[in-house]
Amino acid sequence: MTLNSMKLEVEERQEGGDEMCRTIEVVSSTFAAKHYDFDFASPPSAAKEDADGDCHAEDDPFIPPLNFAMVDNGIFRSGFPDSSNFSFLQTLGLRSIIYLCPEPYPEANMEFLKSNGIKLFQFGIEGYKPFSDHILGSQNFYIMLEPFVNIPDDMIREALKVVLDVRNHPVLIHCKRGKHRTGCLVGCLRKFQSWCLTSVFDEYQRFAAAKARVSDQRFMELFDVSTLKHLCHCNSHVRGGNDHAY
Amino acid sequence: MTLNSMKLEVEERQEGGDEMCRTIEVVSSTFAAKHYDFDFASPPSAAKEDADGDCHAEDDPFIPPLNFAMVDNGIFRSGFPDSSNFSFLQTLGLRSIIYLCPEPYPEANMEFLKSNGIKLFQFGIEGYKPFSDHILGSQNFYIMLEPFVNIPDDMIREALKVVLDVRNHPVLIHCKRGKHRTGCLVGCLRKFQSWCLTSVFDEYQRFAAAKARVSDQRFMELFDVSTLKHLCHCNSHVRGGNDHAY
Repeated sequence: MTLNSMKLEVEERQEGGDEMCRTIEVVSSTFAAKHYDFDFASPPSAAKEDADGDCHAEDDPFIPPLNFAMVDNGIFRSGFPDSSNFSFLQTLGLRSIIYLCPEPYPEANMEFLKSNGIKLFQFGIEGYKPFSDHILGSQNFYIMLEPFVNIPDDMIREALKVVLDVRNHPVLIHCKRGKHRTGCLVGCLRKFQSWCLTSVFDEYQRFAAAKARVSDQRFMELFDVSTLKHLCHCNSHVRGGNDHAY
Repeated sequence: MTLNSMKLEVEERQEGGDEMCRTIEVVSSTFAAKHYDFDFASPPSAAKEDADGDCHAEDDPFIPPLNFAMVDNGIFRSGFPDSSNFSFLQTLGLRSIIYLCPEPYPEANMEFLKSNGIKLFQFGIEGYKPFSDHILGSQNFYIMLEPFVNIPDDMIREALKVVLDVRNHPVLIHCKRGKHRTGCLVGCLRKFQSWCLTSVFDEYQRFAAAKARVSDQRFMELFDVSTLKHLCHCNSHVRGGNDHAY
């Protein structure tokens, strides 16, 4: 399938003036045809076309994005994907991407979304502020504090609703490095799934490693999932296509 | 569903005299009924019975095993599960477990398998040998060497065949800590999936962390997946129940 064979309809929608979520919808009239026939158990047996219409040669290895992992059925996480990851991402058959940074999505990535009929949900959560902004003191006295990282509860909550809606699956969650903003969103999903906090933090730390933040863990601990429980009714298909219950 | 309501047929089979894989098959006549009705998007809305017939209270959090993660559709990994993890494991609807240690499976875990109709594939791969066995030198001269950890190619290969067979899905792979033996098997699966080595090692190191071993990574690098490619034909259903292709 080449770009020329696709009819693209691009709809850009902004929800409210505060831009909590910026949604870019790309509808392809040949969407169904894009589903990759890559069988999980078989390496690509023939050359595949990538997002640019180029071939992915049989012997080329796939390059998953930094910090890529499967979170649950139809839910993936990673750091920022670049063009070297596009062939791999195509194998996921993504229906949407949740992007957790305020910076505009790069042109090459937008093209990839368009050519693969992938919807973008952008939640502009600010990243870590460097220490230099947070040095308090006088000429001869400095205190370096952990900057207050204000993970916005409302944005994570809205993003979690997108994650939980199986109509958006398969979905890839990513920020810049796949550690903090992505880690917090996945941690809140785990709380919703009734994971104990120890396991939530263990998973968070596996990706954040030396960059793990107490402030992120406090955010996850305090995040209230009780108001989201009604979603289990309106998302009756959320378990996805697998016949096992998880 | 209580233990009493289940008719258990236990079949124990040893393949060959060398016991490369010890298989214990447990067939329950009410197997279909055991599938947990836990909806992915909904925390348990009512008390659930666990493997012992006890209730899992609504407010009790689930406790995933150490180093638990989803590898791919129908494939999970972890460290050694104990009874505190059984309620969580039930939500996965497991059909089989691949156990990569030579030690006998604990009685409580065997009971869990029997009561949930889960088949056990055991590959007895020896663990890490302590440094004390590998100190060379004389009275005043010691050299501590990284012990030669002989990950057996043939056992990993047989275990990988079990992983790739969707008739065994959902399957949980585990060893003791979910770092080395499990990491090697998952790494070989990633090679089979044509992941680049950098990503294979990155995933391995995420779980092994400070315990990552060069010898394991060398094993994964040298593992030849070309002889397994025929499996993509005999496992035509290997992609599982999901409609996306990965």
